[in-house]
Amino acid sequence: MNYRFSEAMAGISPSAIREILKYSTDPEVVPFSAGNPAPEAFPVSRIAAISARIFQENPITALQYGATEGYQPLRDYLKQYLKTKHAIGLDGDDLIITSGAQQVMELAAKSLCNAGDVIITEDPSFIGSLNSFRSLGAKLVGVPVQPDGMDLEALESALKAHPNAKLIYTIPNFQNPTGVTMSWKKRQGLYALAKQYGVLIVEDNPYGDLRFAGEEIPAIKTLDTDGLVIYAGSFSKVLAPGMRVAYACGPDPVIRKMTVAKQGEDVHTGLWQQMVAYEFMQEGFEEHLQSLRAIYRGKAERMMALCEEYLVPHGITYLPIEGGLFLWATLPEGADMPRFCTEAVRDHKVAFVPGSAFLTDPTAPCQSFRLNFSTPTDEAMLRGMEKLGAFASKFLK
Amino acid sequence: MNYRFSEAMAGISPSAIREILKYSTDPEVVPFSAGNPAPEAFPVSRIAAISARIFQENPITALQYGATEGYQPLRDYLKQYLKTKHAIGLDGDDLIITSGAQQVMELAAKSLCNAGDVIITEDPSFIGSLNSFRSLGAKLVGVPVQPDGMDLEALESALKAHPNAKLIYTIPNFQNPTGVTMSWKKRQGLYALAKQYGVLIVEDNPYGDLRFAGEEIPAIKTLDTDGLVIYAGSFSKVLAPGMRVAYACGPDPVIRKMTVAKQGEDVHTGLWQQMVAYEFMQEGFEEHLQSLRAIYRGKAERMMALCEEYLVPHGITYLPIEGGLFLWATLPEGADMPRFCTEAVRDHKVAFVPGSAFLTDPTAPCQSFRLNFSTPTDEAMLRGMEKLGAFASKFLK
Repeated sequence: MNYRFSEAMAGISPSAIREILKYSTDPEVVPFSAGNPAPEAFPVSRIAAISARIFQENPITALQYGATEGYQPLRDYLKQYLKTKHAIGLDGDDLIITSGAQQVMELAAKSLCNAGDVIITEDPSFIGSLNSFRSLGAKLVGVPVQPDGMDLEALESALKAHPNAKLIYTIPNFQNPTGVTMSWKKRQGLYALAKQYGVLIVEDNPYGDLRFAGEEIPAIKTLDTDGLVIYAGSFSKVLAPGMRVAYACGPDPVIRKMTVAKQGEDVHTGLWQQMVAYEFMQEGFEEHLQSLRAIYRGKAERMMALCEEYLVPHGITYLPIEGGLFLWATLPEGADMPRFCTEAVRDHKVAFVPGSAFLTDPTAPCQSFRLNFSTPTDEAMLRGMEKLGAFASKFLK
Repeated sequence: MNYRFSEAMAGISPSAIREILKYSTDPEVVPFSAGNPAPEAFPVSRIAAISARIFQENPITALQYGATEGYQPLRDYLKQYLKTKHAIGLDGDDLIITSGAQQVMELAAKSLCNAGDVIITEDPSFIGSLNSFRSLGAKLVGVPVQPDGMDLEALESALKAHPNAKLIYTIPNFQNPTGVTMSWKKRQGLYALAKQYGVLIVEDNPYGDLRFAGEEIPAIKTLDTDGLVIYAGSFSKVLAPGMRVAYACGPDPVIRKMTVAKQGEDVHTGLWQQMVAYEFMQEGFEEHLQSLRAIYRGKAERMMALCEEYLVPHGITYLPIEGGLFLWATLPEGADMPRFCTEAVRDHKVAFVPGSAFLTDPTAPCQSFRLNFSTPTDEAMLRGMEKLGAFASKFLK
């Protein structure tokens, strides 16, 4: 049988990250390639206790079909929490629970974009979201990322050039893959442009709670007096990704349409994990976030010090970060980045992701690569960076 | 803001079932409208024990990111189980774990259909799947359901008339909403037509394990020497729907493309529930299925007896069943079916779903309605059917 796939899906291959992750199953490989939260950050005993209590007190709710919008107590609590803590959510907004934040991007694009419509995105950006948009036949238009966020001049040019742009996709805090945080001024400028051109914003914020230095910058969603912003939050980095619980807060008509789309995808997100997330937020959530920040601060500072020690002397630069899970490093001009990544994992058992994987056009030239520091242990991190430094000293000679 | 939704999504409203389910929150309403498994069928204490063991022995696997294809032990076990017990799965097949079987339909359609492509389906059929196909811009072409399954002459006409047909969607066992089971002869005929016209089959089998009478008929997938059938199974009706675990077994290239699509939707299905499903299958699974069948046999036989007593005397007919969760009842010619459904729930607090909701064209004439018997208690079932009989005697006078 000669299978004919849909035009949108025919062009997508499993992501380059997945290919590199295959090497990570070799326990000798140092996994700077993953995006996994640190396992020591999982509140295992509390989740176990909450889970046991659910099965004692309320098992049928956890096991029966539920509403597509999500578990009502969690929805109500999150609305209040976002409003109180982050000034997110207006009267015209609603909230839906999703199966991970990836589903927010997919549902938003499915609800709003026809095949061929344009989605404007930071370039590079999270490959999972890019592929999600591609899977629906959307056309991606990239806007460069500067150290203070999206290049707004390039954004305006893109908006002018593409009247069929439907969404602007941004990760404003500790962007994946660059680690860049968008300044408050640019957030205001981005919102003003979206308003001017009548385009919705998808604000993806999985890492916002993982800020370990500097001042928190308000979400773009806090500016949203016009019903333009779909804000995505997630429990994947602050509780556990294997549970697949996230949420979107956005204009009521859009959330309603996304709910209809979700009904046709997975009916609803698993109840057990929604109930665990709800119970978990009831007690000591802020203390838990603080303990996470301490873990990631330690790992990030250690990693930046190792970059200074092992990469910078060979001409490799990196963008300093104040949160998140990733560092963005760049080889000196003329160096063969794809070969550097391939030889590092093949010959030296150090895995990380070539920056081109995150581009809207993966064949465009790129000198950068993404280093994750949350997955490896301290020991592995040191070993990996020593090896990488030794390899770089030869490779870049 | 005037939101412009995608063409495919703009036309879909929340399903009529959801609207009627709203009445079901009134505890006085008898819910013949739902599709919920009987809560007494949930193996609560075993799930609780397995869950506790997972958090004791293997918490990080349950909480960390996992593979998009699914939890490897569950995938391996299911492949073996399907082969051994149901003769399903050939060398060229693979298996993916999904977040409920609804996701199988969505991923298959997304992988194989462009907007405007045709999906041929039993008519009436499960509204969730129909809306899932609609959400991707597929055009639905309905084929009538006869007491022994899909009308194959109408199917062949549809295949001839629509060269851009990409999928044939069928629920061969205890079809939702009609309760009809497709005969072995028709399964063979359907497969032959699919082969002749080069169209794939999506075989949705959520209720197959709930047969309480008659002989099991082999799946269409058992005939699949040509790599034409995507078979969907689910834990929703045999374990618990709130967990959202299901699977698809199909030709390797199709499963691979569906895996890429799933990566862009929810990355992977929650690990906890995959691990619970795997552990649950390891011991006493067949005994559990037998106890389920006993529960549903009792409920179905009781419901059919109540139909004989309270509906048939007023000229309402129904299709007898040998499994599943639904009965399909039909009003005498000339009766106003939509009004019957509306007045029953509004004035008599008995909720069920108008048959038109399940049609590819919900505006087409329809005299039937769907009665679920798994959700109400025995007491509520009796009370509901008494009320419905009294109402019918006046309404149909």
